Amino acid sequence: MKAPTSSLPHSGIFISFEGTEGAGKSTLILALAERLIDEGFQVVTTREPGGSAVAEKIRALILGEPMDAWTEAFLYEAARAEHLAKTVVPALRSSTKQDPVIVLCDRFTDSTLAYQGMARGLDWKTLKKLNAIATAGLKPRLTVFVDIDPAQGLKDAKDPNRFEAEGTAFQTKVRKGFLKTIREEPGRFLKVQARSGSPEQMAHELHGRIVKKIPSLKKNVKKSSPRPSRLKK
Amino acid sequence: MKAPTSSLPHSGIFISFEGTEGAGKSTLILALAERLIDEGFQVVTTREPGGSAVAEKIRALILGEPMDAWTEAFLYEAARAEHLAKTVVPALRSSTKQDPVIVLCDRFTDSTLAYQGMARGLDWKTLKKLNAIATAGLKPRLTVFVDIDPAQGLKDAKDPNRFEAEGTAFQTKVRKGFLKTIREEPGRFLKVQARSGSPEQMAHELHGRIVKKIPSLKKNVKKSSPRPSRLKK
Repeated sequence: MKAPTSSLPHSGIFISFEGTEGAGKSTLILALAERLIDEGFQVVTTREPGGSAVAEKIRALILGEPMDAWTEAFLYEAARAEHLAKTVVPALRSSTKQDPVIVLCDRFTDSTLAYQGMARGLDWKTLKKLNAIATAGLKPRLTVFVDIDPAQGLKDAKDPNRFEAEGTAFQTKVRKGFLKTIREEPGRFLKVQARSGSPEQMAHELHGRIVKKIPSLKKNVKKSSPRPSRLKK
Repeated sequence: MKAPTSSLPHSGIFISFEGTEGAGKSTLILALAERLIDEGFQVVTTREPGGSAVAEKIRALILGEPMDAWTEAFLYEAARAEHLAKTVVPALRSSTKQDPVIVLCDRFTDSTLAYQGMARGLDWKTLKKLNAIATAGLKPRLTVFVDIDPAQGLKDAKDPNRFEAEGTAFQTKVRKGFLKTIREEPGRFLKVQARSGSPEQMAHELHGRIVKKIPSLKKNVKKSSPRPSRLKK
């Protein structure tokens, strides 16, 4: 039997970002990445579905047209397996204690539960099994949930994709799904209020909370690349 | 929770065809379909991966380029869920006792076990779980395994796809996988030797064996469309 590559030991730090449409995840990820790179970390920013050549083709297929809800779920898991095998796991495995790699991923397994589970009505436990198979058990060390009022999030969507086009009622269910994933594993999540400051301010505050949550990251920051004074105040 | 549509009651007859590359499944399916249509049956011939608009796009993606083995498995299940929802289940549900619909499908769940399980080395039981989820438990009433020496089957492949291009050793593993699926559920299978006659001869013989195996089909043949005399001798 093929060994699940993602369960191999590594010292990388895998952080996922979740939220309904328009919460500003990708902007926050970029601001946080910049911050971490400034501090000397190796940072990989990526996204689901996508993040590798084949997975981006699967993304185009998913976003391109309506399909059966289970088809959608399996396509997300296919994209996930590929993304992990080609992008996330190699990055995490290239990480060393001295030079840790941080992977920031826009959406991951919780989105499957929120969208295909809570919003589309597919069985929650079955989707959890699919997530476990596609990831070979790899979980984010931390998940940042960026919360926004669903109606507010949809307001600025230009050229809405087919999930945005489902409207506020759908996004409200998605949000309910995320809140359920948080209740199930509260220790994994950090909740952030969308648009509570500039991206840089939000990244600054989030950075502080992440360092508190991940002691190994804090230790490393101190050991190999001292925090710049602007962070010490 | 969304009800699994494929578990709804129906009187259609779903027959899958399995085999390694070059076994002549599709030719046999066409000859058998012609035979059944001549007898007044409604016949739907279809294939996996594919058999519906989105599923054919997934097929192109699968055959187009190399990918992680789990990605491949999930893409097959995505195509399967779509194919069932859009093509197979509607056909089976349109079937009535008086006017049964027969679906002949080129490849189905056993191919996932043989190719991704036995040949690619993914966990057999996990793949069975994925098959069960994608099909919502729908199983073929009968599966025809067309057996061929793998080397022989590959001989005539012009413009080989990436599974054919894997060569004889791979196809030998695939065949071993099919033999395992037969050992696990012997009652579901009919084994046919490839190239043991003209497609018409083979379809004629297979038809006789299918009618023996599916009493409801036999009964219907007698009741609503008498078998032509050429089949009676």
